[in-house]
Amino acid sequence: MNAHTPIVTAGPLPASRKIYLSGTAHPDIRVPLREIAVHPTAGEPPVTVYDASGPYTDPTVETDIARGLPRSRAALTLARGDVEAYEGRAVKPEDNGNLPAEKLTPAFPVQHPPLRARAGQPVTQLAYARAGIVTPEMEFVAIRENLGRQAAKAALARDGEPFEAEIPDVITAEWVREEVASGRAIIPANINHPELEPMAIGRNFLVKINANIGNSAVTSSMAEEVDKMVWAIRWGADTVMDLSTGRNIHNIRDWIIRNAPVPIGTVPLYQALEKVDGIAENLTWEVYRDTLIEQAEQGVDYFTIHAGLRLAHIPLTVDRVTGIVSRGGSIMAKWCLHHHRESFLYEHFEEICDICRAYDVSFSLGDGLRPGSIADANDAAQFAELETLGELTRIAWAKDCQVMIEGPGHVPMHKIKVNVTKQQKLCGDAPFYTLGPLVTDIAPGYDHITSGIGAAMIGWFGTAMLCYVTPKEHLGLPDRDDVKVGVITYKIAAHAADLAKGHPAAQLRDDALSRARFEFRWEDQFNLSLDPETACALHDETLPKEAHKVAHFCSMCGPKFCSMRISHDIRAEAQKEGMAAMAAKYRAGGDLYVPAAEAGAAEPAE
Amino acid sequence: MNAHTPIVTAGPLPASRKIYLSGTAHPDIRVPLREIAVHPTAGEPPVTVYDASGPYTDPTVETDIARGLPRSRAALTLARGDVEAYEGRAVKPEDNGNLPAEKLTPAFPVQHPPLRARAGQPVTQLAYARAGIVTPEMEFVAIRENLGRQAAKAALARDGEPFEAEIPDVITAEWVREEVASGRAIIPANINHPELEPMAIGRNFLVKINANIGNSAVTSSMAEEVDKMVWAIRWGADTVMDLSTGRNIHNIRDWIIRNAPVPIGTVPLYQALEKVDGIAENLTWEVYRDTLIEQAEQGVDYFTIHAGLRLAHIPLTVDRVTGIVSRGGSIMAKWCLHHHRESFLYEHFEEICDICRAYDVSFSLGDGLRPGSIADANDAAQFAELETLGELTRIAWAKDCQVMIEGPGHVPMHKIKVNVTKQQKLCGDAPFYTLGPLVTDIAPGYDHITSGIGAAMIGWFGTAMLCYVTPKEHLGLPDRDDVKVGVITYKIAAHAADLAKGHPAAQLRDDALSRARFEFRWEDQFNLSLDPETACALHDETLPKEAHKVAHFCSMCGPKFCSMRISHDIRAEAQKEGMAAMAAKYRAGGDLYVPAAEAGAAEPAE
Repeated sequence: MNAHTPIVTAGPLPASRKIYLSGTAHPDIRVPLREIAVHPTAGEPPVTVYDASGPYTDPTVETDIARGLPRSRAALTLARGDVEAYEGRAVKPEDNGNLPAEKLTPAFPVQHPPLRARAGQPVTQLAYARAGIVTPEMEFVAIRENLGRQAAKAALARDGEPFEAEIPDVITAEWVREEVASGRAIIPANINHPELEPMAIGRNFLVKINANIGNSAVTSSMAEEVDKMVWAIRWGADTVMDLSTGRNIHNIRDWIIRNAPVPIGTVPLYQALEKVDGIAENLTWEVYRDTLIEQAEQGVDYFTIHAGLRLAHIPLTVDRVTGIVSRGGSIMAKWCLHHHRESFLYEHFEEICDICRAYDVSFSLGDGLRPGSIADANDAAQFAELETLGELTRIAWAKDCQVMIEGPGHVPMHKIKVNVTKQQKLCGDAPFYTLGPLVTDIAPGYDHITSGIGAAMIGWFGTAMLCYVTPKEHLGLPDRDDVKVGVITYKIAAHAADLAKGHPAAQLRDDALSRARFEFRWEDQFNLSLDPETACALHDETLPKEAHKVAHFCSMCGPKFCSMRISHDIRAEAQKEGMAAMAAKYRAGGDLYVPAAEAGAAEPAE
Repeated sequence: MNAHTPIVTAGPLPASRKIYLSGTAHPDIRVPLREIAVHPTAGEPPVTVYDASGPYTDPTVETDIARGLPRSRAALTLARGDVEAYEGRAVKPEDNGNLPAEKLTPAFPVQHPPLRARAGQPVTQLAYARAGIVTPEMEFVAIRENLGRQAAKAALARDGEPFEAEIPDVITAEWVREEVASGRAIIPANINHPELEPMAIGRNFLVKINANIGNSAVTSSMAEEVDKMVWAIRWGADTVMDLSTGRNIHNIRDWIIRNAPVPIGTVPLYQALEKVDGIAENLTWEVYRDTLIEQAEQGVDYFTIHAGLRLAHIPLTVDRVTGIVSRGGSIMAKWCLHHHRESFLYEHFEEICDICRAYDVSFSLGDGLRPGSIADANDAAQFAELETLGELTRIAWAKDCQVMIEGPGHVPMHKIKVNVTKQQKLCGDAPFYTLGPLVTDIAPGYDHITSGIGAAMIGWFGTAMLCYVTPKEHLGLPDRDDVKVGVITYKIAAHAADLAKGHPAAQLRDDALSRARFEFRWEDQFNLSLDPETACALHDETLPKEAHKVAHFCSMCGPKFCSMRISHDIRAEAQKEGMAAMAAKYRAGGDLYVPAAEAGAAEPAE
């Protein structure tokens, strides 16, 4: 057993301390935030940042992968009185690919009986929100999203172009409830995932990012995938999708969920396909339905369901350069064409809703027809499916289910905005969740960058969550290093979007880091960055000595050409002159400030 | 001597062949393009791409760093009859930092007497253009920019949002002349840089990128910098700025220019400051003027001149978070404040024009007050200087000098577009040349990405050239690997901008690569990418065997889940059904195609 237990990276980030805030309506909740300390010479308070990393970065908590994280939400969920524990579905050999015992990833050591809604009870966050109930999850989210906002309110002028977003100065639990009730935000939180630290996805919240992990038939193991999950959230992934497609799917997922403080998403179709030996046309509603229940009982927080790809859409892909590039989409298309039948996901969508409603599994309605190349962007197939996703959204909402909508893919810059506009219109403002988009096809090996450009833009325009793309996209399965690069790139995109939307707390971190930079507090500059290790390592490549960490220059320009050092000299010089007064004069009278002696020379003859 | 000769990377890129096209009006010019061959099974012609790499990637040309590149333009320049060779300025000890012989970088082995305009003759591309003369440089540019456009014209529908850009279907030499005459484009081409392969910078041309190299007082040598220059153009840098600030500046620059097929830009102020021992207030017009002539004689193609930063602007920086972050800007500000005088660059701008005009050195009017943080973006200081840059543009144009304008810096996404709009208005549509901009401050170590986002957007909006930022920005001097990552990131940004502007030839490469991807032509996918080595290496990490280069899957999804493989199955299946006919039916009648049997189930009850 021990040989199989994954080793994960734990411990705080540099200069960082985990703090926990309690609720008012729900005093038992403990909302984690990260405080980054700055050097005492700065005379500044620590910078508080959102923290998706879970207990792993808290040195006072001992985590044990073989036991899983504390099940903090369990008591609150049970206290509602609308759920019941039951025996649950027995694990079947096909759940793990019919592997013999010696090849089987061991089952997670601790098994809990699953919960489900008592008959007829709606237990989704959407149902509570509509009923006017502020859940502990909603208050948790309000406190979490509010970081530093109250303190900073006086200091920060609102700035930005929010388009349709309406971000309040301060977030209240009641406001979170309203956002969830309207369908504009979701809180993915399966009642069987009590290890979860609740978070929200919606255009009026901080822009979130998702990291994909998961083994494939070709490579990787459970230990690697659990390590990647913990590693991804360490660097800021807000949710993690387990896209495993090889054997041992059931057991790998159990290890991941029991150790995940973030929502876990899956594409149940992948496991269903494994159960029919990879033959798409052999898929049945019964196999799929059984897989949904299996995964809902384990605690999956959101399902990608490709129910929007209909038989009628498939012919629209015939002239595409890259056909159907969604795995789920291509599987469903193959099934539909082979049987010449409407998609069983579309036909059984209401039953799917009934299952999701009983566990509060959120929908991530899949874009099976997303474009896989610049040539195919915004085509008839893509938008025909989007229309169906709007139809499915209304059905899911009628069933009290939480919904977000998946989006592209590959889209050149000038075609990005209409994706958001159409999605908001067709899907009634349900949160948008996009993969990139990549703004060009010509840079395999750098698709974290080609897609990071599109992600920042689409996040600004109103996308609520950005699914990361790693440097390995189109080329292979990402390893640990790729996961980190993907996460950091997408944290950049999401944060750039928050800044552009005018999120009231976003610029605090930029400003703190820029002040540190200007004052040569090198350690502070590293610590406030998204990746302190890399920032420090790059600096140390040329100036490794400790003394250089207080030097008033770096190797880029050297001491004599350091503009920041010179700027300090200028300020010192200007204090003699009273620069502020001069500035006021200049602002008041344009060129008035130009001294009389120079005024002639200041206007060169033509 | 040999110990000092740099070793550079030469040889063609994978599957690539250099071709040369001749001119019509000027049959002697040889315009290089790169043809990337695809696998015979594709049945496709090679893809022709722009090629800035010079003779180094042509295996039929033997290059020798110690002799320099062929001086192809020399005969044409002399033939015009308006220039004369003269003895030129003697190299002085202070040009190289007064170093003793043993520390001196050796002089470039071959020295040529410089050329300058005969008295009163205007020899700039702008002067010729205004006179209605189509120079060899203009025809060279027309052929170079036209790659594949004629051939592709029938196939390509124009698409994109060009804003104010007006990109013709096919470029003619006469059209290039008009663009240069109007000031909307420049062809930086010092008459003393005959090794140059001419290129154009303007919003109606392909978006260009610049790579900065240069030693600093802290680190690096001539050999490293020459190697970086050749390495940068290998990956696509269109121009290279030598920002050396240490000793040996004169000699290092000579080695670089004599081996550079791309325009070389400098900031003459850096060398001038070295000549006065790094004491800004000791700078004089005489030292600066002498430096301009020194560099113009060597063949520098464009000068960054920070003449727009005036004494009156400095007080506007007093409340900034990061003060003045331009090196040139901070040096000039210090000089102005110390003497409480108007900038000598501003006062002597007409004399600077006279020098540039005699050698056809283009202006890159520096933005000494560009913002160094999100907090300082688009502030009064920045825009006050931009107004002065507009004034200087008109002065330079009156002197027949070519001009481009430098821009920021650090700008959040929602504040990017106004930078372009203002620049175009204030500077009469002179080409814009921006550094990034970085869209957030919080990711040192990843500033190629934070700035790549802004660069793609500002390129789309109309910026003509993007100055790269490497991962080392803010942290240290970039090495060879950083240079490559910076160049590739900026090629992505520039290409994404070309696509979004609707450049008629841009999408050809995307489409060719996407077809290769869809058809599992792995080698073609690598070869058509911006960085074949990296794409192939990432693929091979998990599937290294040669057999996998023809496999119909990769390690990301494995064979069973490969959507592209399944898409091919779908196409095969659909051929039986006549998918094109079905598509036509669907397009004509919306849901009509949905078969009658499923029509009931297709509309789930609410």
